[in-house]
Amino acid sequence: MTKVDLNCDMGESFGAYKLGRDEEILDFITSANIACGFHAGDPATIRKTVQLAMEKNVGIGVHPGLQDLVGFGRRSMQISPQEAYDLVVYQIGAIYAFAKSEGGKIQHVKPHGALYNMAAKSAPLSEAIAEAIYKVDPELILFGLAGGELVKAGKKIGLRTANEVFADRTYQQDGSLTPRTDSQALITNHEAAVNQVIQMVKEGKVTSLQGINVPIQADTICIHGDGANALDFARYISDSLKDAGIEIAKIKEIL
Amino acid sequence: MTKVDLNCDMGESFGAYKLGRDEEILDFITSANIACGFHAGDPATIRKTVQLAMEKNVGIGVHPGLQDLVGFGRRSMQISPQEAYDLVVYQIGAIYAFAKSEGGKIQHVKPHGALYNMAAKSAPLSEAIAEAIYKVDPELILFGLAGGELVKAGKKIGLRTANEVFADRTYQQDGSLTPRTDSQALITNHEAAVNQVIQMVKEGKVTSLQGINVPIQADTICIHGDGANALDFARYISDSLKDAGIEIAKIKEIL
Amino acid sequence: MTKVDLNCDMGESFGAYKLGRDEEILDFITSANIACGFHAGDPATIRKTVQLAMEKNVGIGVHPGLQDLVGFGRRSMQISPQEAYDLVVYQIGAIYAFAKSEGGKIQHVKPHGALYNMAAKSAPLSEAIAEAIYKVDPELILFGLAGGELVKAGKKIGLRTANEVFADRTYQQDGSLTPRTDSQALITNHEAAVNQVIQMVKEGKVTSLQGINVPIQADTICIHGDGANALDFARYISDSLKDAGIEIAKIKEIL
Amino acid sequence: MTKVDLNCDMGESFGAYKLGRDEEILDFITSANIACGFHAGDPATIRKTVQLAMEKNVGIGVHPGLQDLVGFGRRSMQISPQEAYDLVVYQIGAIYAFAKSEGGKIQHVKPHGALYNMAAKSAPLSEAIAEAIYKVDPELILFGLAGGELVKAGKKIGLRTANEVFADRTYQQDGSLTPRTDSQALITNHEAAVNQVIQMVKEGKVTSLQGINVPIQADTICIHGDGANALDFARYISDSLKDAGIEIAKIKEIL
Repeated sequence: MTKVDLNCDMGESFGAYKLGRDEEILDFITSANIACGFHAGDPATIRKTVQLAMEKNVGIGVHPGLQDLVGFGRRSMQISPQEAYDLVVYQIGAIYAFAKSEGGKIQHVKPHGALYNMAAKSAPLSEAIAEAIYKVDPELILFGLAGGELVKAGKKIGLRTANEVFADRTYQQDGSLTPRTDSQALITNHEAAVNQVIQMVKEGKVTSLQGINVPIQADTICIHGDGANALDFARYISDSLKDAGIEIAKIKEIL
Repeated sequence: MTKVDLNCDMGESFGAYKLGRDEEILDFITSANIACGFHAGDPATIRKTVQLAMEKNVGIGVHPGLQDLVGFGRRSMQISPQEAYDLVVYQIGAIYAFAKSEGGKIQHVKPHGALYNMAAKSAPLSEAIAEAIYKVDPELILFGLAGGELVKAGKKIGLRTANEVFADRTYQQDGSLTPRTDSQALITNHEAAVNQVIQMVKEGKVTSLQGINVPIQADTICIHGDGANALDFARYISDSLKDAGIEIAKIKEIL
Repeated sequence: MTKVDLNCDMGESFGAYKLGRDEEILDFITSANIACGFHAGDPATIRKTVQLAMEKNVGIGVHPGLQDLVGFGRRSMQISPQEAYDLVVYQIGAIYAFAKSEGGKIQHVKPHGALYNMAAKSAPLSEAIAEAIYKVDPELILFGLAGGELVKAGKKIGLRTANEVFADRTYQQDGSLTPRTDSQALITNHEAAVNQVIQMVKEGKVTSLQGINVPIQADTICIHGDGANALDFARYISDSLKDAGIEIAKIKEIL
Repeated sequence: MTKVDLNCDMGESFGAYKLGRDEEILDFITSANIACGFHAGDPATIRKTVQLAMEKNVGIGVHPGLQDLVGFGRRSMQISPQEAYDLVVYQIGAIYAFAKSEGGKIQHVKPHGALYNMAAKSAPLSEAIAEAIYKVDPELILFGLAGGELVKAGKKIGLRTANEVFADRTYQQDGSLTPRTDSQALITNHEAAVNQVIQMVKEGKVTSLQGINVPIQADTICIHGDGANALDFARYISDSLKDAGIEIAKIKEIL
């Protein structure tokens, strides 16, 4: 049976600030990317999110970001590979300690926001990130943009890697995401989004904006946990995948 | 042969800011308390300090502090036991990940500054800190003020504990440190400081300001790494202890 | 005609995190206490909040807090009077610059959370805060707990001061607020809350929990902008005060 | 008589971390660029630096930077013009309030590090920065790289502007600075550095690395306050300029 992992960013609350409907979304996903306190999250939030993920049998993931709380880690920043390495080691530690103290284990690492996007295009950054993960724990799975540099760097160093695809983004004929600056970047129709995902998972291809089918590997699907319809979409994509005969499973049971 | 551990705060640099003569001081100590990025330190500094400690065969310690960078973690803050627990778990993770990635292991945890002082007097805070450590790794050694609440809480939960004494501070007849607000709080004469330490280590007692001998257990001695004479004093206390027939050894080889 | 000022904390959003229904609450209040980026708020939020306050003809206030973003400035911290002075000068500057750039002026300063509570009981802290305000601009109005040290320190140095009362808190017979740890600290019934306020404004007294009437001066009433019923309560208290023949006016038009 | 302003970054200490020999350097310069707490500096440091600058009759400047303390504001960051505007307004406020409380006035604004470099090449960023300054106080003088976008944007909106040149950097034949990645970027010989400056000030031209003379306007010279020889070089450049018949004067007395 065809399998796919469903991942979502989690633990993005900070102090008095609440963000996301983590507890409810966790019912539909298999991998949780938990913010580590640099772009979002704080120690109490990490603890609660790790506990919730364990209760709901969802894979615990590290979601390291740039040290830019006010920008939510979404602003590109000129960091060196060494700085990326250090950021990632540190942030893995944060999630590791809470997982360990609760009797759990980390499953994966997925860089956040600008760090994810910068890495997708930069081999040196990706290699630094992959090395950071490998040196802390070579059993961890690295999530990266399908076909991007992060996945390549992970394979090169010997990590298991997960190609990530997006339900709500359109693709270009070179397999890259349509930039958000383009008016056609987003797929707002839920049915269209789910159909794209099913095609990617079952057929290993995506229809680009240019109308050409492009090969793509879909190991894990990213859904979003904030926004008004986040919960509805999580339920809808989960139901639709099952209806299409696709099993939703933790990435570590797929790779 | 009588043994004692010599510890010092390390890794307190931050970004462009350099603090302490870590590399040189590490030649004289057996346990390094490494700042974790909350009151001081940053990911790059942690990595370098862990590497140096490993090269010089010094025990790697976690030095968790309050989240008060501008105050260097020295200002008391009304935090709950749960908040203390979360702060400590998080900060252990930071040092753990760098130690692991370098092939090393954490030896101990010593809270910093105001967190150390608050814990010394508060059983609930100390119990939260001890639980945080125990749940991440029950093999870690907890450093606390000799006879204080932290050591008691550590023993209660099943951690190995190290009673810490100070070379350069005077003691009261109840065994507590003379408050820094008192003009006689500090021992500035190096010979007097070392003599006090030798008495504590060899005879298990300290002469209080009031002239009365008070029993005290000295498992580890705290020295300071900043200040003009830090390096000279480190060398002097190290030589003097050896001359007095005391072996300086890592805490994990003493307890 | 009896007049009173209605104030509310504003501008507490931070980056991606949204807090409070500022725009709607501003329709009912006369003084806005704008967070300055230390316990909450950021430059963009300050700009937008200053613009909104000006559009709605609400007095622009500085709401300086402790540098504790994750604790929302609610955790007491052992700071010196000099540190309080510096925190307040800095944070006045932040609001000043946005008010100036928008063609507006600052009306008042009200310390936030733990800083407010610490100051209410400490003459040295209050005097440092009052001096900070006075030295930046002696025309600014200082808000403090009715009868507390802040108001006293403000008067002493020559500032105009506003005695602040709370609609939703009960009082003790010495005129102090019932501590939040007490189960009777909060008044959850809207009618009771408003009746207490009307009594304070019109008769200059409050009925303490012990049943004794205590004299109290009510120049400004604090309402809260978050919480499910914040907007309803703002409308209700505004309507009720007017019905009781009390004019709601900016503090600078009252003193 | 030919005049030039001598400026230096100041107030870069933070909490327990000390940086720069501000007090001594202030004897040789005429304009101090004071860090505002985003890339360096804190409220206490700003206060002390403003006081020192006033004692020594040095122009008080705002030195706004990116919110990147661990990177000292030196890492480029993808910020929008609106974000740059907000950062600059906020940071002007910080210095304004301390200057006002000490009875002084701000003279100028010079962006720091990556913000300075990004602005030098970006008209939209520069226009946002210039607008921020103009809207807070149109009397402020804007410092920017000689011939760069910041100076152009300042002139366009109606600010007085100061073309800044560097003593210790080589220039390209298009008038730009040789990138730091080039081995010939720095002039380490003090005499050569000073000769370049004297030529720029007296003759309005600089000899590029390519050997061609390029016209350049030198209203203010940047010197560095950290580094082993900072103080020696400050004294040397100050003496040499005077010997060459150039008067060192505050920028507001030159423009």
